[in-house]
Amino acid sequence: MSSTRTLAVASKPDGDVAALMSDMGTQAREAAARIARADSAAKNRALRSAAGALRAATGTILEANALDIAAMQAGGATAAVIDRGTLSPERIEAIAAGLEAIAALPDPVGQVMSEWDRPNGLSIRRVRTPIGVVGVIFESRPNVTADAGALCLKSGNAVILRGGSDTHRSSAAIHACLVAGLEEAGLPAAAIQLVPTRDRAAVGEMLKGAGGAIDLIVPRGGKSLVQRVQDEARVPVFAHLEGVCHVFIHAAADADMATAIVVNAKMRRTGICGAAETVLIDRAGADRHLGPIVAALIEAGCEVRGDPDVRAADERTLAAGEDDWGTEYLDAIIAMRLVDGLDDAMAHIARYGSQHTDAIVTEDLAAAERFLAEVDSAIVLHNASTQFADGGEFGFGAEIGIATGKLHARGPVGLEQLTTFKYQVRGRGQIRP
Amino acid sequence: MSSTRTLAVASKPDGDVAALMSDMGTQAREAAARIARADSAAKNRALRSAAGALRAATGTILEANALDIAAMQAGGATAAVIDRGTLSPERIEAIAAGLEAIAALPDPVGQVMSEWDRPNGLSIRRVRTPIGVVGVIFESRPNVTADAGALCLKSGNAVILRGGSDTHRSSAAIHACLVAGLEEAGLPAAAIQLVPTRDRAAVGEMLKGAGGAIDLIVPRGGKSLVQRVQDEARVPVFAHLEGVCHVFIHAAADADMATAIVVNAKMRRTGICGAAETVLIDRAGADRHLGPIVAALIEAGCEVRGDPDVRAADERTLAAGEDDWGTEYLDAIIAMRLVDGLDDAMAHIARYGSQHTDAIVTEDLAAAERFLAEVDSAIVLHNASTQFADGGEFGFGAEIGIATGKLHARGPVGLEQLTTFKYQVRGRGQIRP
Repeated sequence: MSSTRTLAVASKPDGDVAALMSDMGTQAREAAARIARADSAAKNRALRSAAGALRAATGTILEANALDIAAMQAGGATAAVIDRGTLSPERIEAIAAGLEAIAALPDPVGQVMSEWDRPNGLSIRRVRTPIGVVGVIFESRPNVTADAGALCLKSGNAVILRGGSDTHRSSAAIHACLVAGLEEAGLPAAAIQLVPTRDRAAVGEMLKGAGGAIDLIVPRGGKSLVQRVQDEARVPVFAHLEGVCHVFIHAAADADMATAIVVNAKMRRTGICGAAETVLIDRAGADRHLGPIVAALIEAGCEVRGDPDVRAADERTLAAGEDDWGTEYLDAIIAMRLVDGLDDAMAHIARYGSQHTDAIVTEDLAAAERFLAEVDSAIVLHNASTQFADGGEFGFGAEIGIATGKLHARGPVGLEQLTTFKYQVRGRGQIRP
Repeated sequence: MSSTRTLAVASKPDGDVAALMSDMGTQAREAAARIARADSAAKNRALRSAAGALRAATGTILEANALDIAAMQAGGATAAVIDRGTLSPERIEAIAAGLEAIAALPDPVGQVMSEWDRPNGLSIRRVRTPIGVVGVIFESRPNVTADAGALCLKSGNAVILRGGSDTHRSSAAIHACLVAGLEEAGLPAAAIQLVPTRDRAAVGEMLKGAGGAIDLIVPRGGKSLVQRVQDEARVPVFAHLEGVCHVFIHAAADADMATAIVVNAKMRRTGICGAAETVLIDRAGADRHLGPIVAALIEAGCEVRGDPDVRAADERTLAAGEDDWGTEYLDAIIAMRLVDGLDDAMAHIARYGSQHTDAIVTEDLAAAERFLAEVDSAIVLHNASTQFADGGEFGFGAEIGIATGKLHARGPVGLEQLTTFKYQVRGRGQIRP
């Protein structure tokens, strides 16, 4: 199922990582030029064929995954890490359905973003174009192989994927299906390449641009990966920092709504970046809000770490230390404190937040509008759960992550964020005076 | 006219550059939070007051400039460099008028870029917001102090300006007027700071982010600055690489239009990044186009460096070497060669171009559309001069440069490109299922 080209790359010794990555980069550049011009039908055919190949290869993929899991267990991986890496027939079907969903999305390439005429008669169009070659560096979850590969293909980019070492067999089995889809559609196999070596030097080469080939790095992983990317990247990066998300319960909040939003924002799924990590409760409404929210969280199985005011309200709470503010628990733990009104809440968020996603709960529209205007985060919500921080929930169809940087992409990164644009100027012989 | 704060910073010894820049960064961050929320009227008042201050300070600015010019002459600067650095009453009036023009532009901050509702009733708005703190590093031209400061202010950003050492007295005199404008409008003086030291270590500190304060670097300068920025920058950069701009004369070009566009694209102003550097002539139309274009260029005072075909057509041409393809002359010199049709022209541009601005001249609309679609440059033109590569000509009102990178900004960088966005989500208590 793999192309000859992929096998040729895979047979290189690990020692020659720079040459390997430069070679992959050259192939990616060539493929990018073809994929940029590929029509939507061909890209969609590749995605649907890949979905079919995935379903047909379910047994092979599960065998590869079993080897990965056995190695992870032997290596003492935690249950959470093993769960993230484990595939099942249902998960493989979900990956295949995801490819079909991306095939069904509108093609961003060639979309006219804006269009205007100049007094001299020049007609200017701003048109979406692919970025070129994207490098995606991810950990553990093998489904990212398919999601990221498909999003980059649909947006007209070539991609070099570097998956987690733990699940390299699973990723390779999934990647083979993507390559089969490309070949079925007559598109270059090198449009979606998977780094065949587990040598971590490959990550360094990608961060340096793989010989000038990579236009953008999208990291998907934990703090150590993010730190390495920040230290070493010589090409643009869609930063994906942690989500230290806050819910601020304003004095004028509806009490039932406040409780429901806090519990959902924390407990629906604790391991996602849009999960709330800190609750700020307006002192002026604390008598109505504090007790019920703490009780509901504890009842839902959440550990509450509070400041002295919170601790005084419910003896089941633990003491929060300075380190708790600004911590992304990604677990059933939440930090909670009282604040003195909207300004104090916004100051706390500015100091400890990660500019990811923050929410206010209030019936006071003026307070809500100030919060929405002044909190400098990618996503700000009024009377809604922070767990809506998700490309699918935004209607983007699929996402490759949530960007916390401010440039180019901010918030959910979907097809549109994986494109750039150019200006097409149409004239009739105009020269500049 | 300078604020106490600015004077305090200026008095620090050069040796402590890291501390100085970190201090400036802290002040910029604080100012950025205020400028981000400043209303349009206050920002416009600051710009108009600064324009008034500039006019009133014309004598002072010219005195400062005279000292800069004298030092440059003593140091053996070239005539071109001295010309770029020289101010006159007319140039100062143009700078003041430029500030007023930026005041008259629409405020990008708070503009709703798009807005949609989700099936669950959530209302999502994508709203323009400032980026934060911008670092602008420029050389020689002291007017950039005012242009860049004003564009950053209007777009709601704080800015740290680091001007060329040669014209530091001129820049300081202009900067004092900007500070006067800010103070007149009740805005923080630290919204527009000028690095007071000529120590080049300050550039390094800016490229490292000035203690985490700088969100974006905008370099305006020659190859050595661009190279340093690429090597050292640890924060996002709006790359401003050279403009190796091509004009391709397709076989089906109108001969008069072709000649007029080539001469304008090269000779209107040879020193700007949108000036054409290479002309590609379709072999199939060479008998009609080559002679007249070469003759017109030479008549206009341009040196033509050609391949053997070009040389054979006109003995006044010189021989082009491999180095001429891809050279940004910024002078009255142009490289010229024949190509075998549209595909060969696009292959030449892909190989030697800088993805800045490229034009096709043809009456064949299908060829034009392929060129506009497939040439991967920030600006692609059909039947128009490459000298239109300019924010003013695009209707952006003013520009801080032309970005040749693909992320966030591409092409002219005006107010809009100096903003980012956030998503505001308005709900009625929605939680995620």
